[in-house]
Amino acid sequence: MAKISNQATWIWYPGDYEIWLGNRMNNRRTERGAFFPPFWKSDSHFVTVEFSTVVDLAAAEEIEIESEGIFNLKLDGKLQFGMPKRFLLPAGRHNLNIKVWNQATPPAIYVEGATIASNSRWRVTFEDKEWIDESGKASDTSATIYASAGSWNFTKEQRPSAYALCREPLEAASVAEVEGGLLYDFGRETFGYAVLEGVAGVGELAIYYGESPEEAQDTEYCETLDRLAVTEEAIVDLAVNASTPKTERYVLGNSKAFRYLYVTTEGVTLRGVSMEYEYAPVDYRGSFRSSDEELNRIWEIGAYTMHLTTREFFIDGIKRDRWVWSGDAVQSYLMNYYLFFDSECVKRTTWLLRGKDPVTAHTNTIMDYTFYWFIGIYDYYMYTGDLAFVKQIYPRMQTMMEYVLGRTNRNGMVEGMTGDWVFVDWADGFLDKKGELAIEQVLLCKSLETMALCASLAEVEEDVATYEQLAAELRAKLMPAFWSEAKQAMVHNRIDGVQSESVTRYANMFATFFGYLTPAQQEQIKHSVLLNDEVLKITTPYMRFYELEALCVMGEQEAVMGEMKAYWGGMLREGATSFWEKYNPSEQGVEHLAMYGRPYGKSLCHAWGASPIYLLGKYYLGVRPVKPGYAEFEIRPTTGGLEWMEGVIPTPNGAITVKIDQKTIHVEATEGEGWLYFRSEGAPKASEGEIESLGEGEYRLWVATAQPVTVNF
Amino acid sequence: MAKISNQATWIWYPGDYEIWLGNRMNNRRTERGAFFPPFWKSDSHFVTVEFSTVVDLAAAEEIEIESEGIFNLKLDGKLQFGMPKRFLLPAGRHNLNIKVWNQATPPAIYVEGATIASNSRWRVTFEDKEWIDESGKASDTSATIYASAGSWNFTKEQRPSAYALCREPLEAASVAEVEGGLLYDFGRETFGYAVLEGVAGVGELAIYYGESPEEAQDTEYCETLDRLAVTEEAIVDLAVNASTPKTERYVLGNSKAFRYLYVTTEGVTLRGVSMEYEYAPVDYRGSFRSSDEELNRIWEIGAYTMHLTTREFFIDGIKRDRWVWSGDAVQSYLMNYYLFFDSECVKRTTWLLRGKDPVTAHTNTIMDYTFYWFIGIYDYYMYTGDLAFVKQIYPRMQTMMEYVLGRTNRNGMVEGMTGDWVFVDWADGFLDKKGELAIEQVLLCKSLETMALCASLAEVEEDVATYEQLAAELRAKLMPAFWSEAKQAMVHNRIDGVQSESVTRYANMFATFFGYLTPAQQEQIKHSVLLNDEVLKITTPYMRFYELEALCVMGEQEAVMGEMKAYWGGMLREGATSFWEKYNPSEQGVEHLAMYGRPYGKSLCHAWGASPIYLLGKYYLGVRPVKPGYAEFEIRPTTGGLEWMEGVIPTPNGAITVKIDQKTIHVEATEGEGWLYFRSEGAPKASEGEIESLGEGEYRLWVATAQPVTVNF
Repeated sequence: MAKISNQATWIWYPGDYEIWLGNRMNNRRTERGAFFPPFWKSDSHFVTVEFSTVVDLAAAEEIEIESEGIFNLKLDGKLQFGMPKRFLLPAGRHNLNIKVWNQATPPAIYVEGATIASNSRWRVTFEDKEWIDESGKASDTSATIYASAGSWNFTKEQRPSAYALCREPLEAASVAEVEGGLLYDFGRETFGYAVLEGVAGVGELAIYYGESPEEAQDTEYCETLDRLAVTEEAIVDLAVNASTPKTERYVLGNSKAFRYLYVTTEGVTLRGVSMEYEYAPVDYRGSFRSSDEELNRIWEIGAYTMHLTTREFFIDGIKRDRWVWSGDAVQSYLMNYYLFFDSECVKRTTWLLRGKDPVTAHTNTIMDYTFYWFIGIYDYYMYTGDLAFVKQIYPRMQTMMEYVLGRTNRNGMVEGMTGDWVFVDWADGFLDKKGELAIEQVLLCKSLETMALCASLAEVEEDVATYEQLAAELRAKLMPAFWSEAKQAMVHNRIDGVQSESVTRYANMFATFFGYLTPAQQEQIKHSVLLNDEVLKITTPYMRFYELEALCVMGEQEAVMGEMKAYWGGMLREGATSFWEKYNPSEQGVEHLAMYGRPYGKSLCHAWGASPIYLLGKYYLGVRPVKPGYAEFEIRPTTGGLEWMEGVIPTPNGAITVKIDQKTIHVEATEGEGWLYFRSEGAPKASEGEIESLGEGEYRLWVATAQPVTVNF
Repeated sequence: MAKISNQATWIWYPGDYEIWLGNRMNNRRTERGAFFPPFWKSDSHFVTVEFSTVVDLAAAEEIEIESEGIFNLKLDGKLQFGMPKRFLLPAGRHNLNIKVWNQATPPAIYVEGATIASNSRWRVTFEDKEWIDESGKASDTSATIYASAGSWNFTKEQRPSAYALCREPLEAASVAEVEGGLLYDFGRETFGYAVLEGVAGVGELAIYYGESPEEAQDTEYCETLDRLAVTEEAIVDLAVNASTPKTERYVLGNSKAFRYLYVTTEGVTLRGVSMEYEYAPVDYRGSFRSSDEELNRIWEIGAYTMHLTTREFFIDGIKRDRWVWSGDAVQSYLMNYYLFFDSECVKRTTWLLRGKDPVTAHTNTIMDYTFYWFIGIYDYYMYTGDLAFVKQIYPRMQTMMEYVLGRTNRNGMVEGMTGDWVFVDWADGFLDKKGELAIEQVLLCKSLETMALCASLAEVEEDVATYEQLAAELRAKLMPAFWSEAKQAMVHNRIDGVQSESVTRYANMFATFFGYLTPAQQEQIKHSVLLNDEVLKITTPYMRFYELEALCVMGEQEAVMGEMKAYWGGMLREGATSFWEKYNPSEQGVEHLAMYGRPYGKSLCHAWGASPIYLLGKYYLGVRPVKPGYAEFEIRPTTGGLEWMEGVIPTPNGAITVKIDQKTIHVEATEGEGWLYFRSEGAPKASEGEIESLGEGEYRLWVATAQPVTVNF
């Protein structure tokens, strides 16, 4: 359970601050000096909301009130004069209401007294008749949403609308004179604000950004750039027509991703170029080391890739799109649970992706991304145990699912309709998007199961039955519709009731780890699909994530270790300092930089590139929650053929440490308890507790909280 | 038809600017120094929208671009650098797209070139996949709304977000020293910003506002006030904690309604108090004069009342609530057609009242107000002929009606549900709100008929049949449900299928002018209800509007003239300088000021007080449109017993002049044509055209455009 402390924090209508901040995030994308906002509906906050609480005071108490927006204050229903900064509440039981209006930024308040503190226990409404309370129940049956106030851990001085990530000055690692300009190399992929030092003269100056030297120096095709006019008095950012008086140190207004900066000048001189690195203040709560240095490097570059893409929200990539995409985010969530365990960022991203009612399109306009959005919420609950969030978001799950169900065909299946983007993956080969795609039905089925689970958590009993039935009905149709005995696999799609000839990996791998296949089918698809080179290969780390996860679920950790070292190691050998959006080992040189028909279209720092973080934590160190928030965990360590491996897996308020080599396993959990599973040829011994044999060389041992255990096997 | 000129204007997503401006309007209400926003959901604009047009240029053309918000520009799908103020379009056919983001105020653009002009022909979307074109058809079947860009007649310099009404300095008519302070009398009800001149000293100053001297001097109970702290350097508005350097002329930040200002000081002196009168720049296009000076005064005070309450929107009253209420607005619309003919204000008010999807409550939370909202749209179409607006707003009519139909009972009727406010009227007596109220079903029936008519105008054929059927079904149920032969009237309500014993005027009068009664029933209710003093009397001008309209429809103009002179003349005799929210002739002295349990709760300048403007124009001068936009009109003049009467009725682009005395009628129309109906005992003669006898002393004569006609009868 997420704890609600009695500490005061800024509060707002749940989801609204997240949506507002998300617009700022998504709208920082530029393409060659042009503003480039998302192409889906951008939502906005409720502009007038009312906060309330009931206080029961032993003695009169003065409260301090900070607000973002114009507000009024009611004590027991009576309006008070003005917008008091301090207000004396008399002793006894009182209703305190504060109503705030703010068009530009989300209405928010901070209230603090000796015993009174604004926090998520406060109620909030966007119209008076719909009071929302902490229990998650609206007092009015016509409520369209119920939730307690939204919050984050802001202090009084941290006004929500002024939120900014951290910054740190960084110097270039080297600089070289190249044809027509200077090329600065910051040593590795980075992100932040270019800084011009000692600009003098009158003329023009341009900065070309590159994740590669080729990109930076290609002034015609690099993805991002800045153009500045320098006058006697001022430096003018020509993209946004913003003039700043000439200063010794000119910091560009918008952050960008790069390793290289190519700077050209005309009539202008400058002393140097540096940067302000911008980053989220996350803790590296997870860690990983092994006997394989290449694997360690993969984990480190994965962690750095995750750090660069973990910002106000989990974004796809730092150069492009710098947007919050659901398919990308749901993978970031999973990696995050094994690295930063930043729950607030998961919640913020989930709110933003959902937006507000009415639903007029799929999440990011992509059908599959809608389904990942649902699935990510139950994942979050399992890892964090945060029931309050499930209750807060559930009404938006309902309206999202209503939208989906309004677009199913007579089989209760989804097919791409006008306006839907059926994505699946970027594939180096033809991917049919017509008719009923097996993967979309598998994801829909899992989404319906998720709805039933979350309905139960939100105590909306009537929905539990509805969604359980819908899920069961669809589940029962999946194999009759898509399983082909001839192909020993699920086919890719079905058009007008006819199975296509095409087999792809997608549905087969999801069906595997969703447990939709029989053991026999699972064994069949391992060979007919997953380990079959004839089937269209996956060339994005995005889908490799799931492909390798499916193999791990089948116990193929040794094979997956080889794949990881080949694929992610391959990127390292290509000089990657962060992991890429797409990697096709058969490509050469600058081919690796191109995508979307553009020579530098590919993002070289893409969150979905970091999946070893997740695979190593969950399927090698082998840790996962069995009960919400790691109240119970399971540990199934396996070295995947390496000599030794060790690491720390964060839990909501603690950590699980796992060390494994050829002879011993050491585990320690500062919170939670659960089974440690392992195999042994001999007669294993434990330093604590009693080992239980499961037969066929399988053993288990109960691990208690804060009781380190070493097993010799 | 509203014409679309080739003049450039600022454009935005339809309804969004109106909603934003409406929040500013509604949120200016204060109560004794406290901010007092509405208690219903306040909506907001889409923060990112894309505007587009197709140009076909004989020669290259430079356009000038102004924007409210950050924007990008695409030429034929290709993003251009920066946010150009000027851009050269090459000759030929091109797609021009401008995408704008603005959180604080509605995204808006102004584009102008030799032949190119931003106007309502431009398309606009809040997500790329839903292109909206001028034809009113979305190119995508998943469109949730279709419309061309919203606009108003703004020039390049008039940035929409900076819009303000006009101001004019006004001096008080008199000032008197009264106990403890000074009482300024501005001579009549007025509205604007108090101005303090020559403030000196250090201490405190308070301004108490009154529509009456009693209110101004009652510092404990007056409805609005200002408290200021004066320091050595500054004047601080204590309600909003806003400090302004001491100036010779200090203008209060918020406008208020008053006739009297009572000013008290402590440690502070000032030279004088004046005001800045604030008003909408409307034209008095309608006029009225008659042989009865009291009636003339009623019309003038009605017109002034309308002017004070016609602002950015049609509001209820200027002191309180200063909000846009649908029931009040729909009457303002009708009065407006006979006075200012300000179509833009009707449209703005209609957009604001509707707000955005999803619909979570009735308009202003009031069931009956939702129905007036529908009805007002068809009224608007009939008076203005503005088909484009009907097409623009129709999708929001659909979602509003979906909400209503989702709340009907098994009889297809509406009953108050949790969260609904069933208002009807402020009555001096018990008004049952339980079960199926006859008036609500009558209004719902008319709303369904309105939906069918507007669906046909918007060319949504499937809706026409649906709503026609729903309307017919409900219409067929009305009299079986509510007509009582015993009472010769429609009863007030029905609970669990049982007619109540109560008869009120409401349903009976609406059923009359909606034409839902048979001629026999109409004659019965005239005596059993409308002219029956035993039936609960109406004490608001609001419902007197409809009561008197019903009697006029029955030809009772002489009786209604007596009622108007007694009721509105009664207010004048009580000293009214604008018409009131409520007037009960049986009350005395300060009783007239009280309402809602507060001694000065009543608004003494309320739009719904001005109904003689409408009644005199429509039922005495007798002018109304028969075809949309007065393409055809009808004129049925009657003096209602007076010696003579004359006036001008505005039409979209012209006027109809009517003069009538005991012997002649003179009419003249600068646009449109139609029948003049009149009665004559003798043999009437016309200066133009041929008089047609309809029998029984009824005649008619066709009046052509711009052909003045005089009839001697």
